[in-house]
Amino acid sequence: MFKTKMNIVQIFRGVDVAARSDKREELKARLIVAARKRIEAQGVRGLRARDITSDAGCALGGLYNAFADLQDLIIHVNGETLDALEARLSAAVSAAGTDPRERLEALALAYLDFAGEHRALWFALFDAASLADTTIPDWHREQQRSLVGLIAEPLRAIETELDEAHLAARAQALFAAVHGIVTLSLEERTIGLSGDPLAHELRTLVRRMTTAQL
Amino acid sequence: MFKTKMNIVQIFRGVDVAARSDKREELKARLIVAARKRIEAQGVRGLRARDITSDAGCALGGLYNAFADLQDLIIHVNGETLDALEARLSAAVSAAGTDPRERLEALALAYLDFAGEHRALWFALFDAASLADTTIPDWHREQQRSLVGLIAEPLRAIETELDEAHLAARAQALFAAVHGIVTLSLEERTIGLSGDPLAHELRTLVRRMTTAQL
Repeated sequence: MFKTKMNIVQIFRGVDVAARSDKREELKARLIVAARKRIEAQGVRGLRARDITSDAGCALGGLYNAFADLQDLIIHVNGETLDALEARLSAAVSAAGTDPRERLEALALAYLDFAGEHRALWFALFDAASLADTTIPDWHREQQRSLVGLIAEPLRAIETELDEAHLAARAQALFAAVHGIVTLSLEERTIGLSGDPLAHELRTLVRRMTTAQL
Repeated sequence: MFKTKMNIVQIFRGVDVAARSDKREELKARLIVAARKRIEAQGVRGLRARDITSDAGCALGGLYNAFADLQDLIIHVNGETLDALEARLSAAVSAAGTDPRERLEALALAYLDFAGEHRALWFALFDAASLADTTIPDWHREQQRSLVGLIAEPLRAIETELDEAHLAARAQALFAAVHGIVTLSLEERTIGLSGDPLAHELRTLVRRMTTAQL
């Protein structure tokens, strides 16, 4: 119906807009790949727009055409990292079978493995400074909630006395506790574990956090 | 004995060295105060030597006379923060009485309070980036170990089956777990708790971590 009302110029404009939109999506994808590679190579700190656009083979302005700013681009890289993390955690939880404690233990160990394998990308997820003064978009918050949901699911089978709000709080606390152990270890601080004791303490934490009903 | 061997010039030189050493200590103290205030006001990121020396009323070179570099000065500020934290935790653990679980709970809650009250100084303690490529001096590592020792002490009364190495690992894990919950909360992330649920989850974590003997 619309098409019959368009003249030939309008039709070509439509084609043009579609082509431009495709090009913009293609540029976005290229910039995300370039930014990810830069973060993997040198970390998220000191990431420079000009390096990324140079790697992606576009003008500096191209970045600001495709994304609101460098922070917005970093959030998109983080979005891909969270997707990859969720895929890894989902696979681990499925492989762990039906016992909820074993599922939670598998989640913690898969989290440790992922963080170790993708150090720089994983640090970028939690580098508050590189995203200071940035509003985290809803789709990214939704990704974070979805990850906590992976923990809440087996936890629900154990913490039968908790309502949904308390269950969510417990899942967040369990995530944060595991995250704390993984972070201090990967940062290689004095107060940090490594090797076998690290995995052992992570398992102990998860088992104890999900066993004593006090 | 040495003095009898000194001539008058050497004696005056000695006085001079002592006076210079006093002055250097006084300058160090002033620079630490200036750096601490800057960190409290604007955080440890982007801290500039020229701002600190200007605040302390000395030439830029004064900083490099008193400290190896800006990182060395930051470590000295962190050292004072760790001293203050240790004093706070020691007071909390003493006030908690003799029950080891209550002592550990008091430590976790005092840690949360301290971090909340001294956010910027506390973040500076864990800002790996601001101290990248810096060797942490032994006295500072010793301070960190001393803090973990505060946790290990009551834990020893509970975890009677653990040898010293495993006890140290458990104390580190407990610290890191509490630290993770406190950090993600203070950074105000989606995956972070606040208010009553935060204190409740911290207590639950400590109680469970120190109860189930699995």
